[in-house]
Amino acid sequence: MSEKEFLAKALESKGLEPGDLVEVVSSDGRMLQGILMPHHEFSGGDIVTIKLGSGYNVGMRLRDPDAIRLIMKAETGKPLKAKIMTSSKAGGRSALPKISIVSTGGTIASYVDYRTGAVKPAITADELARSVPELADICTPKSEVLYSILSENMRPKNWSELAERIADHLNSGSMGCIVPHGTDTMGYTGAALAFSLSNLTGPVVLVGSQRSSDRPSSDSTLNLLSAARVCLDADLGEAVVLMHSGPDDEVCTIHRGTRVRKCHSSRRDAFETINGAPLGSVEGGRILLSADHEKRSNGKVLSDPRFDDNVAMLNFYPGLTAAKLRKYSDGASGLVIAGTGLGHVHQELIAEIARLTADDIPVCVTTQCIGGSVNLNVYSTGRDMLKAGAIQLGDMLSETAFVKLSWVLGHTDDIGKCREMMLLDMRREMGLRRPL
Amino acid sequence: MSEKEFLAKALESKGLEPGDLVEVVSSDGRMLQGILMPHHEFSGGDIVTIKLGSGYNVGMRLRDPDAIRLIMKAETGKPLKAKIMTSSKAGGRSALPKISIVSTGGTIASYVDYRTGAVKPAITADELARSVPELADICTPKSEVLYSILSENMRPKNWSELAERIADHLNSGSMGCIVPHGTDTMGYTGAALAFSLSNLTGPVVLVGSQRSSDRPSSDSTLNLLSAARVCLDADLGEAVVLMHSGPDDEVCTIHRGTRVRKCHSSRRDAFETINGAPLGSVEGGRILLSADHEKRSNGKVLSDPRFDDNVAMLNFYPGLTAAKLRKYSDGASGLVIAGTGLGHVHQELIAEIARLTADDIPVCVTTQCIGGSVNLNVYSTGRDMLKAGAIQLGDMLSETAFVKLSWVLGHTDDIGKCREMMLLDMRREMGLRRPL
Repeated sequence: MSEKEFLAKALESKGLEPGDLVEVVSSDGRMLQGILMPHHEFSGGDIVTIKLGSGYNVGMRLRDPDAIRLIMKAETGKPLKAKIMTSSKAGGRSALPKISIVSTGGTIASYVDYRTGAVKPAITADELARSVPELADICTPKSEVLYSILSENMRPKNWSELAERIADHLNSGSMGCIVPHGTDTMGYTGAALAFSLSNLTGPVVLVGSQRSSDRPSSDSTLNLLSAARVCLDADLGEAVVLMHSGPDDEVCTIHRGTRVRKCHSSRRDAFETINGAPLGSVEGGRILLSADHEKRSNGKVLSDPRFDDNVAMLNFYPGLTAAKLRKYSDGASGLVIAGTGLGHVHQELIAEIARLTADDIPVCVTTQCIGGSVNLNVYSTGRDMLKAGAIQLGDMLSETAFVKLSWVLGHTDDIGKCREMMLLDMRREMGLRRPL
Repeated sequence: MSEKEFLAKALESKGLEPGDLVEVVSSDGRMLQGILMPHHEFSGGDIVTIKLGSGYNVGMRLRDPDAIRLIMKAETGKPLKAKIMTSSKAGGRSALPKISIVSTGGTIASYVDYRTGAVKPAITADELARSVPELADICTPKSEVLYSILSENMRPKNWSELAERIADHLNSGSMGCIVPHGTDTMGYTGAALAFSLSNLTGPVVLVGSQRSSDRPSSDSTLNLLSAARVCLDADLGEAVVLMHSGPDDEVCTIHRGTRVRKCHSSRRDAFETINGAPLGSVEGGRILLSADHEKRSNGKVLSDPRFDDNVAMLNFYPGLTAAKLRKYSDGASGLVIAGTGLGHVHQELIAEIARLTADDIPVCVTTQCIGGSVNLNVYSTGRDMLKAGAIQLGDMLSETAFVKLSWVLGHTDDIGKCREMMLLDMRREMGLRRPL
């Protein structure tokens, strides 16, 4: 009998089910009380997981069936086990509207291996759906694991594949598409989906988690449920990022994909809409949207996700020399420079901008300040940069500029056409308050 | 007779002095009323400058002495001309405490050339002192123009020279040193002075301006006067940045040099202390300091401003390849990578970190999130980066990490010693809340 079978038998023989309050004595004699959690297939065959009163989950190795005993049956009449079934297994729920979940990985799709203590990406989207059983109460989730990677490993080719899959899902009748994603590069992917997809029949909601779901402070449940609410209820046809609004586990903010940045490494409310108000919020299931959102369109979602994967990006810093910039930009098809302040670089670098431009390599300029707009018309440095051919991108985020340039160069290699497209506000990536 | 002499004669013949309310008829027939401003030696010989009721300054070419006439003499008994003299010229003021002003350039030391409309750096520090006449009421300013450059053109060698000059000034009896500086790279210079100077007998206050002094919304006067107050009144022995606290022209914030970042391209309150509370504030001349500031020391200010000017810095982005990183880091003496989230990079880059480390090129890791701390112990990517030799820098700002690595490598080329120094909190550049 395998470890897993042993555990299943032991629990069955005791009549124990997820949701029950149990007491477990560990091999070292510790006794703990808590709620029996659903068995996690990656937690090791003989590990039972208990949610303590503190909210923390602990995994304990169970070798003796007598080491676990029932204290109280699950309080609700509706045992947890019934709730965690995805709709494909839960007969009679097919009338609920369909939402797609196209998982890419990240913390929201990760779990703690209690044997090593490490956080690892989950492999199946069903697991993800199961981790938020309430999802099956409001929709028919249609899950797909496209990737199971940490988002620092996303590449432009992944953006393309993801966009194609999302279009397929929406064109198959889903009301919206939830995309679980690592938070590290979620802002980049938000912009990539915004430029790749058009005529959206429903929201595309990137959703992540800053704390894994085994932690009491996890933000994954609220984020996922709020994302589902947006897919179901919002008349929204945009690619957005949805994350916690503040330190409390109450409100989520909807950020436009081209306007959002991860501004903190660990806070649950790490994401911010830059240079403008967020697109909306979700509180207690109620959705507020700003007036200027794109509505759901009719017809077919279009996907055009061609990216040039050879664009380079660089934040200027004191001491960056022309020689270093030349080395760095060698072989690149385009360059985004995040300058200081209004977009400036050392005067020595301006000749390099001219050289690159003359070689048909577009050089786009943003600011490393995060907030505010580039304006190369104020100081002599800026005007010289413009003369050299720099394309100043207003209040566009550097990350969005990088994604957009990659997308534009996936569609044209004509520098004039590229400039024109970069300066065209395609997905509200540039503000209207400061025309160039 | 030169244009300038003509203008001086014309004004003298009319008995007109700066501060007087005048009416001017321009060559195209426009008539404007305003306050006659002190003649600006860079504004062109025949240009008179008038401050309008709106607060804006305009420059008008004066060819006919009759085109200007007096409306009302300066209201105060104390004409503006007397106030603008620096103490070296204003006899009897030598009893006021001495403050040094070592100017490097930037908007705070710039003026608008009314003939071209361009903002240009001023050349003399006297001009700077004159632009804020109130300075001479509270101190004896000792001015020096070290540079007259836009701060995007600052290099590590400029940091060194600046540190040496500041030490000389403080060691010559100044109560403190104000350093007018362009805002673009002021945060970098703040960190550079913090690491270069020790045993400070008084504050070193970097001060800038987001709006030039000819604009009604200029922040330069309040910033300069507040900086002077800090030099005079604060028991502070640190290198700091002082700028507006908010949109109103009322309060300034004192930021620790190693903790400050320009977060907005144009707002007057663009500067923020990252990952902590600011060091203090100045409101209505009253200074508040947080409890943990360094006090003025006795004895001699020490300057040790050796910087390696060959350190490179790079923000990771999706699509950055090992080949590109290799090209970029080729020939660098050290590298700062601002990773995503907790400090991550694509797994493909980890072998490059190992290769650089094996070649005795230190690779330091910060987060591009701005807020929060690096933590490479949470995910497998991070742990692999640590194994490869990455030096994780807690909550240190990327800009500060770059400056510190440049400074450390100016003092040792031993990678072990470098690692040790980078992890040592020397100037409160690393938080205590998240020990590594």
